[in-house]
Amino acid sequence: MKKTSTAAMALRPLAMNHISVDCVVMGFDGKKLHVLLIERAVEIDGTVIHDMKLPGDLIYEDENLDEAAARVLHDLTGIKNINLLQFKAYGSKDRTKNRKDLLWLEHTTHTRVERIVTVGYLSLVRIGRSLAVQHLDDEARWVAVDELNTLPFDHNAIIDDALSVIRSQAEADPSYLFNLLPQKFTALQLRTLYERVYGKRQDVRNFQKKMNQLDYVIALDERERDVAHRAARLYRFDRKIYKRSRR
Amino acid sequence: MKKTSTAAMALRPLAMNHISVDCVVMGFDGKKLHVLLIERAVEIDGTVIHDMKLPGDLIYEDENLDEAAARVLHDLTGIKNINLLQFKAYGSKDRTKNRKDLLWLEHTTHTRVERIVTVGYLSLVRIGRSLAVQHLDDEARWVAVDELNTLPFDHNAIIDDALSVIRSQAEADPSYLFNLLPQKFTALQLRTLYERVYGKRQDVRNFQKKMNQLDYVIALDERERDVAHRAARLYRFDRKIYKRSRR
Repeated sequence: MKKTSTAAMALRPLAMNHISVDCVVMGFDGKKLHVLLIERAVEIDGTVIHDMKLPGDLIYEDENLDEAAARVLHDLTGIKNINLLQFKAYGSKDRTKNRKDLLWLEHTTHTRVERIVTVGYLSLVRIGRSLAVQHLDDEARWVAVDELNTLPFDHNAIIDDALSVIRSQAEADPSYLFNLLPQKFTALQLRTLYERVYGKRQDVRNFQKKMNQLDYVIALDERERDVAHRAARLYRFDRKIYKRSRR
Repeated sequence: MKKTSTAAMALRPLAMNHISVDCVVMGFDGKKLHVLLIERAVEIDGTVIHDMKLPGDLIYEDENLDEAAARVLHDLTGIKNINLLQFKAYGSKDRTKNRKDLLWLEHTTHTRVERIVTVGYLSLVRIGRSLAVQHLDDEARWVAVDELNTLPFDHNAIIDDALSVIRSQAEADPSYLFNLLPQKFTALQLRTLYERVYGKRQDVRNFQKKMNQLDYVIALDERERDVAHRAARLYRFDRKIYKRSRR
Protein backbone atom coordinates (compact mmCIF):
# COMPACT_ATOMS: atom_id res chain seq x y z
CA MET A 1 0.00 0.00 0.00
CA LYS A 2 3.07 2.23 -0.22
CA LYS A 3 2.94 4.85 -2.93
CA THR A 4 5.73 2.94 -4.67
CA SER A 5 3.57 -0.14 -5.19
CA THR A 6 2.86 0.55 -8.87
CA ALA A 7 6.55 0.77 -9.70
CA ALA A 8 7.32 -2.32 -7.65
CA MET A 9 4.59 -4.24 -9.38
CA ALA A 10 6.09 -3.62 -12.79
CA LEU A 11 9.23 -5.42 -11.61
CA ARG A 12 7.50 -8.13 -9.68
CA PRO A 13 4.88 -10.14 -11.55
CA LEU A 14 1.50 -10.82 -9.99
CA ALA A 15 0.53 -14.42 -9.44
CA MET A 16 -2.14 -15.71 -11.81
CA ASN A 17 -3.60 -18.69 -10.13
CA HIS A 18 -5.95 -21.48 -10.62
CA ILE A 19 -8.01 -22.14 -7.55
CA SER A 20 -8.99 -25.57 -6.42
CA VAL A 21 -10.85 -27.10 -3.55
CA ASP A 22 -9.77 -30.26 -1.76
CA CYS A 23 -12.17 -32.19 0.44
CA VAL A 24 -11.04 -34.11 3.49
CA VAL A 25 -13.90 -36.52 4.15
CA MET A 26 -13.33 -38.40 7.38
CA GLY A 27 -15.05 -41.54 8.57
CA PHE A 28 -14.62 -43.91 11.50
CA ASP A 29 -15.17 -47.66 11.11
CA GLY A 30 -15.20 -48.40 14.84
CA LYS A 31 -11.47 -49.07 14.84
CA LYS A 32 -9.68 -46.37 12.87
CA LEU A 33 -10.18 -42.96 11.34
CA HIS A 34 -10.36 -43.14 7.58
CA VAL A 35 -10.05 -40.51 4.89
CA LEU A 36 -11.67 -40.74 1.47
CA LEU A 37 -9.10 -40.80 -1.32
CA ILE A 38 -9.47 -41.17 -5.07
CA GLU A 39 -7.25 -42.97 -7.48
CA ARG A 40 -5.11 -40.98 -9.84
CA ALA A 41 -3.28 -42.27 -12.91
CA VAL A 42 -0.20 -40.37 -14.08
CA GLU A 43 1.83 -41.19 -17.17
CA ILE A 44 5.50 -40.49 -16.63
CA ASP A 45 7.98 -41.21 -19.40
CA GLY A 46 5.67 -43.80 -20.93
CA THR A 47 4.76 -45.60 -17.71
CA VAL A 48 1.39 -45.19 -16.05
CA ILE A 49 1.63 -44.84 -12.28
CA HIS A 50 -1.40 -45.12 -10.01
CA ASP A 51 -1.62 -43.37 -6.70
CA MET A 52 -4.22 -41.80 -4.40
CA LYS A 53 -5.11 -38.19 -3.68
CA LEU A 54 -7.72 -36.11 -1.90
CA PRO A 55 -10.89 -35.55 -3.91
CA GLY A 56 -10.58 -32.08 -5.37
CA ASP A 57 -10.89 -30.08 -8.53
CA LEU A 58 -10.21 -26.69 -10.03
CA ILE A 59 -13.14 -24.33 -9.66
CA TYR A 60 -15.17 -23.20 -12.63
CA GLU A 61 -15.69 -19.60 -13.59
CA ASP A 62 -19.35 -19.69 -12.58
CA GLU A 63 -19.08 -21.20 -9.12
CA ASN A 64 -17.81 -20.04 -5.76
CA LEU A 65 -15.63 -22.02 -3.37
CA ASP A 66 -18.41 -23.68 -1.36
CA GLU A 67 -20.24 -24.62 -4.55
CA ALA A 68 -17.10 -26.18 -6.00
CA ALA A 69 -16.51 -28.24 -2.84
CA ALA A 70 -20.13 -29.45 -2.88
CA ARG A 71 -19.82 -30.37 -6.57
CA VAL A 72 -16.63 -32.34 -6.05
CA LEU A 73 -18.20 -34.34 -3.25
CA HIS A 74 -21.45 -34.84 -5.11
CA ASP A 75 -19.67 -36.07 -8.23
CA LEU A 76 -17.67 -38.43 -6.09
CA THR A 77 -20.23 -39.81 -3.70
CA GLY A 78 -23.64 -38.99 -5.10
CA ILE A 79 -24.67 -37.20 -1.93
CA LYS A 80 -25.86 -33.63 -1.62
CA ASN A 81 -26.32 -31.38 1.38
CA ILE A 82 -23.25 -32.70 3.11
CA ASN A 83 -21.86 -30.43 5.78
CA LEU A 84 -18.57 -28.99 4.50
CA LEU A 85 -16.39 -26.82 6.69
CA GLN A 86 -13.84 -24.62 4.97
CA PHE A 87 -10.74 -24.71 7.16
CA LYS A 88 -7.68 -23.34 5.37
CA ALA A 89 -6.27 -21.98 2.12
CA TYR A 90 -2.95 -23.40 0.88
CA GLY A 91 -0.97 -21.11 -1.37
CA SER A 92 2.67 -22.09 -1.14
CA LYS A 93 4.46 -21.62 -4.44
CA ASP A 94 6.03 -25.04 -3.84
CA ARG A 95 2.69 -26.87 -3.98
CA THR A 96 3.22 -27.80 -7.63
CA LYS A 97 6.95 -28.44 -7.62
CA ASN A 98 6.63 -32.22 -8.03
CA ARG A 99 6.96 -33.20 -11.71
CA LYS A 100 4.47 -36.06 -11.33
CA ASP A 101 1.82 -33.66 -10.03
CA LEU A 102 2.46 -31.16 -12.82
CA LEU A 103 2.18 -33.85 -15.50
CA TRP A 104 -1.08 -35.05 -14.01
CA LEU A 105 -2.49 -31.52 -13.80
CA GLU A 106 -1.66 -30.73 -17.39
CA HIS A 107 -3.08 -34.01 -18.56
CA THR A 108 -6.38 -33.68 -16.71
CA THR A 109 -6.97 -29.95 -17.18
CA HIS A 110 -5.59 -29.62 -20.74
CA THR A 111 -4.14 -26.32 -19.70
CA ARG A 112 -0.83 -25.06 -18.45
CA VAL A 113 -1.10 -24.74 -14.70
CA GLU A 114 1.59 -22.77 -12.94
CA ARG A 115 0.29 -22.33 -9.50
CA ILE A 116 -2.75 -23.54 -7.65
CA VAL A 117 -4.09 -22.12 -4.46
CA THR A 118 -6.30 -24.75 -2.90
CA VAL A 119 -8.92 -24.35 -0.23
CA GLY A 120 -9.39 -27.23 2.20
CA TYR A 121 -12.83 -28.44 3.26
CA LEU A 122 -13.63 -30.94 6.00
CA SER A 123 -16.60 -33.23 6.35
CA LEU A 124 -17.35 -35.99 8.83
CA VAL A 125 -19.53 -38.86 7.65
CA ARG A 126 -20.86 -42.05 9.17
CA ILE A 127 -19.16 -44.93 7.41
CA GLY A 128 -21.70 -47.59 6.59
CA ARG A 129 -24.68 -45.42 7.48
CA SER A 130 -24.07 -42.57 5.08
CA LEU A 131 -24.92 -42.70 1.42
CA ALA A 132 -21.32 -41.80 0.87
CA VAL A 133 -20.16 -45.36 0.90
CA GLN A 134 -22.99 -46.83 -1.12
CA HIS A 135 -22.50 -44.39 -3.98
CA LEU A 136 -18.75 -44.39 -3.96
CA ASP A 137 -17.20 -44.32 -7.38
CA ASP A 138 -14.97 -47.31 -7.86
CA GLU A 139 -12.15 -44.77 -8.07
CA ALA A 140 -12.70 -43.73 -4.45
CA ARG A 141 -11.51 -45.59 -1.37
CA TRP A 142 -11.42 -45.19 2.41
CA VAL A 143 -7.83 -45.30 3.66
CA ALA A 144 -6.86 -45.45 7.35
CA VAL A 145 -5.29 -42.15 8.37
CA ASP A 146 -2.39 -43.89 10.12
CA GLU A 147 -1.61 -45.94 7.00
CA LEU A 148 -1.28 -43.11 4.48
CA ASN A 149 1.58 -43.09 2.02
CA THR A 150 3.10 -39.90 0.73
CA LEU A 151 0.26 -38.21 -1.15
CA PRO A 152 0.47 -35.75 -4.05
CA PHE A 153 0.87 -32.00 -3.58
CA ASP A 154 0.59 -31.06 0.11
CA HIS A 155 -2.27 -33.48 0.74
CA ASN A 156 -0.60 -35.12 3.75
CA ALA A 157 -0.25 -31.70 5.41
CA ILE A 158 -3.87 -30.86 4.55
CA ILE A 159 -5.05 -34.08 6.23
CA ASP A 160 -2.89 -33.33 9.29
CA ASP A 161 -4.45 -29.88 9.51
CA ALA A 162 -7.92 -31.40 9.17
CA LEU A 163 -7.20 -33.62 12.18
CA SER A 164 -6.26 -30.53 14.20
CA VAL A 165 -9.48 -28.89 13.08
CA ILE A 166 -11.46 -31.94 14.27
CA ARG A 167 -9.77 -31.65 17.67
CA SER A 168 -10.47 -27.94 18.06
CA GLN A 169 -14.03 -28.32 16.78
CA ALA A 170 -14.59 -31.10 19.31
CA GLU A 171 -13.11 -28.93 22.05
CA ALA A 172 -15.51 -26.09 21.22
CA ASP A 173 -18.48 -28.42 20.65
CA PRO A 174 -18.29 -31.89 22.26
CA SER A 175 -21.17 -33.12 20.10
CA TYR A 176 -19.00 -32.82 17.00
CA LEU A 177 -17.39 -36.27 17.23
CA PHE A 178 -20.77 -38.02 17.38
CA ASN A 179 -21.06 -37.21 13.66
CA LEU A 180 -18.52 -39.98 13.17
CA LEU A 181 -20.42 -42.65 15.12
CA PRO A 182 -23.37 -44.77 14.03
CA GLN A 183 -26.77 -43.86 15.56
CA LYS A 184 -26.23 -46.65 18.09
CA PHE A 185 -22.72 -47.25 19.31
CA THR A 186 -20.84 -49.11 22.02
CA ALA A 187 -18.66 -47.62 24.77
CA LEU A 188 -15.69 -49.25 23.08
CA GLN A 189 -16.45 -47.46 19.80
CA LEU A 190 -16.71 -44.08 21.53
CA ARG A 191 -13.51 -44.65 23.47
CA THR A 192 -11.63 -45.87 20.41
CA LEU A 193 -12.79 -42.78 18.51
CA TYR A 194 -11.38 -40.53 21.24
CA GLU A 195 -8.13 -42.47 21.19
CA ARG A 196 -7.84 -42.06 17.42
CA VAL A 197 -8.69 -38.36 17.40
CA TYR A 198 -6.43 -37.42 20.30
CA GLY A 199 -3.74 -39.97 19.53
CA LYS A 200 -3.50 -41.37 23.04
CA ARG A 201 -4.85 -44.28 25.07
CA GLN A 202 -7.85 -43.63 27.30
CA ASP A 203 -8.11 -45.48 30.59
CA VAL A 204 -11.11 -47.83 30.27
CA ARG A 205 -12.64 -47.16 33.69
CA ASN A 206 -12.07 -43.41 33.70
CA PHE A 207 -13.53 -43.15 30.24
CA GLN A 208 -16.63 -45.15 31.20
CA LYS A 209 -17.04 -42.96 34.28
CA LYS A 210 -16.81 -39.74 32.26
CA MET A 211 -19.19 -41.17 29.67
CA ASN A 212 -21.75 -42.03 32.36
CA GLN A 213 -21.64 -38.42 33.52
CA LEU A 214 -22.72 -37.15 30.10
CA ASP A 215 -26.49 -36.99 30.33
CA TYR A 216 -26.76 -36.70 26.55
CA VAL A 217 -25.21 -40.13 26.03
CA ILE A 218 -28.15 -42.45 26.61
CA ALA A 219 -27.68 -46.12 27.52
CA LEU A 220 -30.17 -48.23 25.54
CA ASP A 221 -31.89 -51.48 26.52
CA GLU A 222 -30.24 -52.98 23.49
CA ARG A 223 -27.08 -54.84 22.74
CA GLU A 224 -24.93 -55.44 19.69
CA ARG A 225 -26.05 -58.19 17.32
CA ASP A 226 -24.15 -60.72 15.28
CA VAL A 227 -20.89 -60.29 17.08
CA ALA A 228 -18.43 -63.03 17.87
CA HIS A 229 -17.62 -61.67 21.33
CA ARG A 230 -20.00 -60.92 24.20
CA ALA A 231 -22.55 -58.43 22.86
CA ALA A 232 -21.94 -54.98 24.36
CA ARG A 233 -24.56 -52.44 25.41
CA LEU A 234 -25.53 -49.82 22.84
CA TYR A 235 -25.74 -46.08 23.46
CA ARG A 236 -27.12 -43.16 21.50
CA PHE A 237 -26.37 -39.44 21.43
CA ASP A 238 -29.35 -37.23 22.32
CA ARG A 239 -29.01 -33.88 20.56
CA LYS A 240 -31.96 -32.26 22.39
CA ILE A 241 -30.54 -32.99 25.82
CA TYR A 242 -27.11 -31.91 24.59
CA LYS A 243 -28.44 -28.57 23.39
CA ARG A 244 -30.24 -27.98 26.67
CA SER A 245 -27.05 -28.77 28.62
CA ARG A 246 -25.09 -26.21 26.59
CA ARG A 247 -27.40 -23.25 27.15
CA MET B 1 -13.89 -36.73 -10.70
CA LYS B 2 -16.43 -38.38 -13.02
CA LYS B 3 -14.98 -39.74 -16.22
CA THR B 4 -16.97 -37.08 -18.06
CA SER B 5 -15.05 -34.26 -16.45
CA THR B 6 -12.86 -33.54 -19.47
CA ALA B 7 -15.87 -33.10 -21.75
CA ALA B 8 -17.67 -31.00 -19.16
CA MET B 9 -14.64 -28.81 -18.76
CA ALA B 10 -14.60 -27.91 -22.43
CA LEU B 11 -18.08 -26.44 -21.99
CA ARG B 12 -17.48 -24.88 -18.63
CA PRO B 13 -14.51 -22.54 -18.36
CA LEU B 14 -12.13 -22.78 -15.44
CA ALA B 15 -11.75 -19.76 -13.22
CA MET B 16 -8.49 -17.88 -13.63
CA ASN B 17 -8.05 -15.88 -10.52
CA HIS B 18 -5.94 -13.33 -8.92
CA ILE B 19 -5.34 -14.06 -5.28
CA SER B 20 -5.20 -11.41 -2.66
CA VAL B 21 -4.78 -11.25 1.06
CA ASP B 22 -6.75 -8.94 3.32
CA CYS B 23 -5.61 -8.19 6.85
CA VAL B 24 -8.02 -7.50 9.67
CA VAL B 25 -5.89 -5.76 12.28
CA MET B 26 -7.87 -5.20 15.46
CA GLY B 27 -7.05 -2.92 18.33
CA PHE B 28 -8.81 -1.82 21.51
CA ASP B 29 -8.47 1.73 22.83
CA GLY B 30 -10.01 0.98 26.23
CA LYS B 31 -13.46 1.89 24.98
CA LYS B 32 -14.08 0.32 21.59
CA LEU B 33 -12.73 -2.28 19.21
CA HIS B 34 -11.06 -0.68 16.23
CA VAL B 35 -10.03 -2.04 12.87
CA LEU B 36 -7.20 -0.67 10.75
CA LEU B 37 -8.43 0.66 7.41
CA ILE B 38 -6.62 2.40 4.59
CA GLU B 39 -7.81 5.16 2.37
CA ARG B 40 -8.68 4.40 -1.22
CA ALA B 41 -9.22 6.89 -4.02
CA VAL B 42 -11.39 5.83 -6.96
CA GLU B 43 -12.07 7.92 -10.05
CA ILE B 44 -15.58 7.37 -11.32
CA ASP B 45 -16.79 9.29 -14.35
CA GLY B 46 -14.30 12.07 -13.74
CA THR B 47 -14.91 12.43 -10.01
CA VAL B 48 -12.47 11.14 -7.42
CA ILE B 49 -14.15 9.42 -4.51
CA HIS B 50 -12.33 8.57 -1.30
CA ASP B 51 -13.33 5.69 0.90
CA MET B 52 -11.76 3.16 3.26
CA LYS B 53 -10.90 -0.51 2.86
CA LEU B 54 -9.07 -3.31 4.60
CA PRO B 55 -5.32 -3.33 3.99
CA GLY B 56 -4.73 -5.95 1.34
CA ASP B 57 -2.98 -6.62 -1.93
CA LEU B 58 -2.72 -9.12 -4.74
CA ILE B 59 -0.02 -11.68 -4.15
CA TYR B 60 3.13 -11.75 -6.23
CA GLU B 61 4.26 -14.74 -8.20
CA ASP B 62 7.20 -15.36 -5.87
CA GLU B 63 5.45 -15.25 -2.51
CA ASN B 64 3.04 -17.50 -0.68
CA LEU B 65 -0.08 -16.42 1.20
CA ASP B 66 1.52 -15.88 4.61
CA GLU B 67 4.39 -13.95 3.05
CA ALA B 68 1.99 -11.70 1.19
CA ALA B 69 0.01 -10.95 4.36
CA ALA B 70 3.21 -10.13 6.24
CA ARG B 71 4.34 -7.86 3.39
CA VAL B 72 1.05 -5.96 3.30
CA LEU B 73 1.20 -5.31 7.02
CA HIS B 74 4.86 -4.42 6.97
CA ASP B 75 4.37 -1.93 4.13
CA LEU B 76 1.49 -0.41 6.02
CA THR B 77 2.75 -0.29 9.56
CA GLY B 78 6.49 -0.80 9.45
CA ILE B 79 6.29 -3.73 11.83
CA LYS B 80 7.57 -7.21 11.19
CA ASN B 81 6.97 -10.49 13.01
CA ILE B 82 3.38 -9.65 13.74
CA ASN B 83 1.22 -12.66 14.53
CA LEU B 84 -1.14 -13.23 11.59
CA LEU B 85 -3.82 -15.88 11.72
CA GLN B 86 -5.26 -17.04 8.42
CA PHE B 87 -8.97 -17.53 9.03
CA LYS B 88 -10.94 -17.86 5.79
CA ALA B 89 -10.80 -17.74 2.00
CA TYR B 90 -13.43 -15.70 0.17
CA GLY B 91 -14.18 -16.78 -3.37
CA SER B 92 -17.68 -15.67 -4.27
CA LYS B 93 -17.93 -14.70 -7.90
CA ASP B 94 -19.90 -11.64 -6.73
CA ARG B 95 -16.97 -10.19 -4.82
CA THR B 96 -16.03 -7.92 -7.73
CA LYS B 97 -19.50 -7.03 -8.96
CA ASN B 98 -19.36 -3.41 -7.75
CA ARG B 99 -18.25 -1.09 -10.57
CA LYS B 100 -16.41 1.21 -8.17
CA ASP B 101 -14.30 -1.71 -6.94
CA LEU B 102 -13.55 -2.90 -10.47
CA LEU B 103 -12.44 0.55 -11.57
CA TRP B 104 -10.17 0.84 -8.57
CA LEU B 105 -8.68 -2.60 -9.17
CA GLU B 106 -7.92 -1.91 -12.79
CA HIS B 107 -6.44 1.45 -11.97
CA THR B 108 -4.16 0.16 -9.21
CA THR B 109 -3.12 -3.15 -10.78
CA HIS B 110 -2.90 -1.99 -14.42
CA THR B 111 -4.37 -5.31 -15.39
CA ARG B 112 -7.80 -6.65 -16.16
CA VAL B 113 -9.01 -8.41 -13.04
CA GLU B 114 -12.01 -10.67 -13.40
CA ARG B 115 -12.16 -12.47 -10.19
CA ILE B 116 -10.22 -12.31 -6.97
CA VAL B 117 -10.15 -14.94 -4.30
CA THR B 118 -8.99 -13.30 -1.12
CA VAL B 119 -7.62 -14.90 2.02
CA GLY B 120 -8.42 -13.20 5.30
CA TYR B 121 -5.81 -12.78 8.04
CA LEU B 122 -6.40 -11.59 11.57
CA SER B 123 -4.03 -9.85 13.93
CA LEU B 124 -4.58 -8.33 17.36
CA VAL B 125 -2.37 -5.42 18.35
CA ARG B 126 -2.03 -3.16 21.36
CA ILE B 127 -3.11 0.30 20.34
CA GLY B 128 -0.71 2.87 21.71
CA ARG B 129 1.87 0.31 22.80
CA SER B 130 2.54 -1.36 19.50
CA LEU B 131 4.77 0.05 16.79
CA ALA B 132 1.73 -0.28 14.59
CA VAL B 133 0.40 3.12 15.50
CA GLN B 134 3.70 4.96 15.50
CA HIS B 135 4.56 3.85 11.99
CA LEU B 136 1.10 4.14 10.49
CA ASP B 137 1.07 5.52 6.99
CA ASP B 138 -1.00 8.65 6.84
CA GLU B 139 -3.28 6.64 4.55
CA ALA B 140 -4.16 4.25 7.38
CA ARG B 141 -6.62 4.90 10.17
CA TRP B 142 -8.20 3.10 13.14
CA VAL B 143 -11.98 3.00 12.78
CA ALA B 144 -14.35 1.80 15.51
CA VAL B 145 -15.90 -1.50 14.47
CA ASP B 146 -19.41 -0.32 15.41
CA GLU B 147 -19.05 2.82 13.30
CA LEU B 148 -18.09 1.23 10.00
CA ASN B 149 -19.70 2.38 6.78
CA THR B 150 -20.30 0.06 3.88
CA LEU B 151 -16.83 -1.02 2.82
CA PRO B 152 -15.62 -2.14 -0.62
CA PHE B 153 -15.87 -5.76 -1.80
CA ASP B 154 -17.03 -8.04 1.02
CA HIS B 155 -14.86 -6.31 3.62
CA ASN B 156 -17.74 -5.80 6.07
CA ALA B 157 -18.43 -9.55 6.01
CA ILE B 158 -14.72 -10.31 6.43
CA ILE B 159 -14.59 -8.07 9.53
CA ASP B 160 -17.74 -9.76 10.94
CA ASP B 161 -16.10 -13.15 10.43
CA ALA B 162 -12.93 -11.89 12.11
CA LEU B 163 -14.98 -10.95 15.18
CA SER B 164 -16.40 -14.49 15.30
CA VAL B 165 -12.87 -15.83 15.03
CA ILE B 166 -11.79 -13.65 17.97
CA ARG B 167 -14.66 -15.07 20.02
CA SER B 168 -13.89 -18.68 19.22
CA GLN B 169 -10.16 -18.15 19.72
CA ALA B 170 -10.89 -16.59 23.12
CA GLU B 171 -13.16 -19.52 23.98
CA ALA B 172 -10.41 -22.01 23.16
CA ASP B 173 -7.67 -19.91 24.75
CA PRO B 174 -8.77 -17.33 27.35
CA SER B 175 -5.36 -15.61 27.17
CA TYR B 176 -6.10 -14.51 23.60
CA LEU B 177 -7.93 -11.28 24.47
CA PHE B 178 -5.06 -10.02 26.63
CA ASN B 179 -3.24 -9.36 23.34
CA LEU B 180 -5.60 -6.41 22.97
CA LEU B 181 -4.88 -4.87 26.36
CA PRO B 182 -1.92 -2.75 27.47
CA GLN B 183 0.62 -4.44 29.77
CA LYS B 184 -1.12 -2.83 32.73
CA PHE B 185 -4.87 -2.45 32.54
CA THR B 186 -7.82 -1.62 34.75
CA ALA B 187 -10.79 -3.85 35.58
CA LEU B 188 -12.95 -1.46 33.62
CA GLN B 189 -10.79 -1.91 30.52
CA LEU B 190 -10.96 -5.70 30.75
CA ARG B 191 -14.71 -5.65 31.29
CA THR B 192 -15.29 -3.21 28.45
CA LEU B 193 -13.21 -5.40 26.15
CA TYR B 194 -15.40 -8.41 27.01
CA GLU B 195 -18.52 -6.33 26.39
CA ARG B 196 -17.22 -5.25 22.98
CA VAL B 197 -16.12 -8.70 21.90
CA TYR B 198 -19.27 -10.49 23.03
CA GLY B 199 -21.65 -7.63 22.28
CA LYS B 200 -23.38 -7.66 25.65
CA ARG B 201 -23.21 -5.88 28.98
CA GLN B 202 -21.33 -7.57 31.81
CA ASP B 203 -22.57 -7.16 35.36
CA VAL B 204 -19.89 -5.14 37.20
CA ARG B 205 -19.83 -7.20 40.40
CA ASN B 206 -20.03 -10.60 38.75
CA PHE B 207 -17.28 -9.63 36.37
CA GLN B 208 -15.02 -8.39 39.18
CA LYS B 209 -15.68 -11.63 41.08
CA LYS B 210 -14.83 -13.80 38.06
CA MET B 211 -11.73 -11.70 37.42
CA ASN B 212 -10.54 -12.14 41.02
CA GLN B 213 -10.80 -15.90 40.56
CA LEU B 214 -8.34 -15.86 37.66
CA ASP B 215 -4.97 -16.43 39.29
CA TYR B 216 -3.19 -15.27 36.15
CA VAL B 217 -4.68 -11.78 36.41
CA ILE B 218 -2.45 -10.11 38.98
CA ALA B 219 -3.55 -7.06 40.93
CA LEU B 220 -0.66 -4.57 41.13
CA ASP B 221 0.22 -2.10 43.87
CA GLU B 222 -0.17 0.59 41.27
CA ARG B 223 -2.91 2.87 40.08
CA GLU B 224 -3.68 4.77 36.90
CA ARG B 225 -1.93 8.11 36.43
CA ASP B 226 -3.05 11.39 34.96
CA VAL B 227 -6.73 10.56 34.94
CA ALA B 228 -9.51 13.01 35.69
CA HIS B 229 -11.52 10.47 37.70
CA ARG B 230 -10.45 8.49 40.76
CA ALA B 231 -7.39 6.47 39.71
CA ALA B 232 -8.24 2.79 39.38
CA ARG B 233 -6.07 -0.16 40.34
CA LEU B 234 -3.93 -1.67 37.61
CA TYR B 235 -3.67 -5.37 36.76
CA ARG B 236 -1.40 -7.41 34.58
CA PHE B 237 -1.73 -10.74 32.79
CA ASP B 238 0.83 -13.39 33.87
CA ARG B 239 1.49 -15.76 31.00
CA LYS B 240 3.60 -18.17 33.07
CA ILE B 241 0.86 -18.71 35.65
CA TYR B 242 -1.68 -18.95 32.84
CA LYS B 243 0.31 -21.67 31.08
CA ARG B 244 0.67 -23.63 34.30
CA SER B 245 -3.09 -23.39 34.94
CA ARG B 246 -3.83 -24.81 31.48
CA ARG B 247 -1.70 -27.91 31.74
